[in-house]
Amino acid sequence: MTIQLYCFGESGHSYKAALALELSGLEWEPKYVDFFNGEARSPEYLKINAMGECPAIVDGDLSLSQSGVIIDYITEKTGKFGGKTPEEKREVLRWVLWDNHKLSAQLGPLRFMMNFLPEEKRNPEVIAFLTGRTQAALKTLESALEGKDWLVGDEITAADLSCCSYLFYPEPFGFTRSDWPNIDTWLARIEALPGYKIPYDLMPGSPADRA
Amino acid sequence: MTIQLYCFGESGHSYKAALALELSGLEWEPKYVDFFNGEARSPEYLKINAMGECPAIVDGDLSLSQSGVIIDYITEKTGKFGGKTPEEKREVLRWVLWDNHKLSAQLGPLRFMMNFLPEEKRNPEVIAFLTGRTQAALKTLESALEGKDWLVGDEITAADLSCCSYLFYPEPFGFTRSDWPNIDTWLARIEALPGYKIPYDLMPGSPADRA
Repeated sequence: MTIQLYCFGESGHSYKAALALELSGLEWEPKYVDFFNGEARSPEYLKINAMGECPAIVDGDLSLSQSGVIIDYITEKTGKFGGKTPEEKREVLRWVLWDNHKLSAQLGPLRFMMNFLPEEKRNPEVIAFLTGRTQAALKTLESALEGKDWLVGDEITAADLSCCSYLFYPEPFGFTRSDWPNIDTWLARIEALPGYKIPYDLMPGSPADRA
Repeated sequence: MTIQLYCFGESGHSYKAALALELSGLEWEPKYVDFFNGEARSPEYLKINAMGECPAIVDGDLSLSQSGVIIDYITEKTGKFGGKTPEEKREVLRWVLWDNHKLSAQLGPLRFMMNFLPEEKRNPEVIAFLTGRTQAALKTLESALEGKDWLVGDEITAADLSCCSYLFYPEPFGFTRSDWPNIDTWLARIEALPGYKIPYDLMPGSPADRA
């Protein structure tokens, strides 16, 4: 059974699930959601995910949403990305929650506002606010990666997959890899994994389609 | 062994853990963190939680942070709040992640800015931005509670404990219970649980101390 991932290329949260699926070796295919034309809020899509968000997966009779839940399901099916000990499992959950709260929750709206919102709707004060919170989160991430290859344990986990996602996008959102040496080498380590692909090669839809 | 919860009364994230501990029946005590004077960023506190945030717990040799991880640990110890089936467990995680990303991540900074930041630093544009995102999240929550006593299954879980927390605070942040009938009766259901206490009765520190 091929897992279907409802997603669109620009979605950093979708990329977390897409990258986890690709690196896991499971069979999957992307199903494009036309987010910028409101498809995520359509009655059909709300049947798949009542939260009206991407990503969601359908695996036979099962539908799941929230990237953290999807990666957890991949862990259940493959044993990958979950951490090896109870301590590691807790650390993985801790970083996934931290990412959802402190990193991606800022980066998502910041990148959206700086790149995908019409210029007249971009609010410099909100951009400054989100930039400040993003930089504080990047500082925490940079420190956590000091002297470590992966956030938790000795191989890639959901912690890395969740935190890295937005940082692979090319659009400007106040993040320059070379300013953050630990983050930079960690991202390079992920890029070197067999099967790694950039977001726009893994999922349909990109800013180029709307240019 | 008494579990120590590092927290302060104003912290909605701390309240999630405090309420879970209190309702679980475990022995616990609050340890006050003087957040407003920077204690959460002190070298001593960073040894307990490198993320520099509240809450954190210490249980013997173990320290844990992130309210979602702490409640998960309470589930491990007591069997409570985790959901009963694999499907329920996934749904619980889904709502905890959603709360961290869409509800509390907006409500926390919004309430802080509207109440605890000096007036000259309150930014109306950022308040409007966060208010918009908060109202959208409340709408999702209100719909999800339609015809249901609890977010997942037939008893209180981490999903409810995570999502309800900020909504019990008395300071203004654009939330009026009577505007949201499903949320209102759900909060009343939580208030009716044996052992329920409001945030400022469960943890030390409140705006009254700084008045």
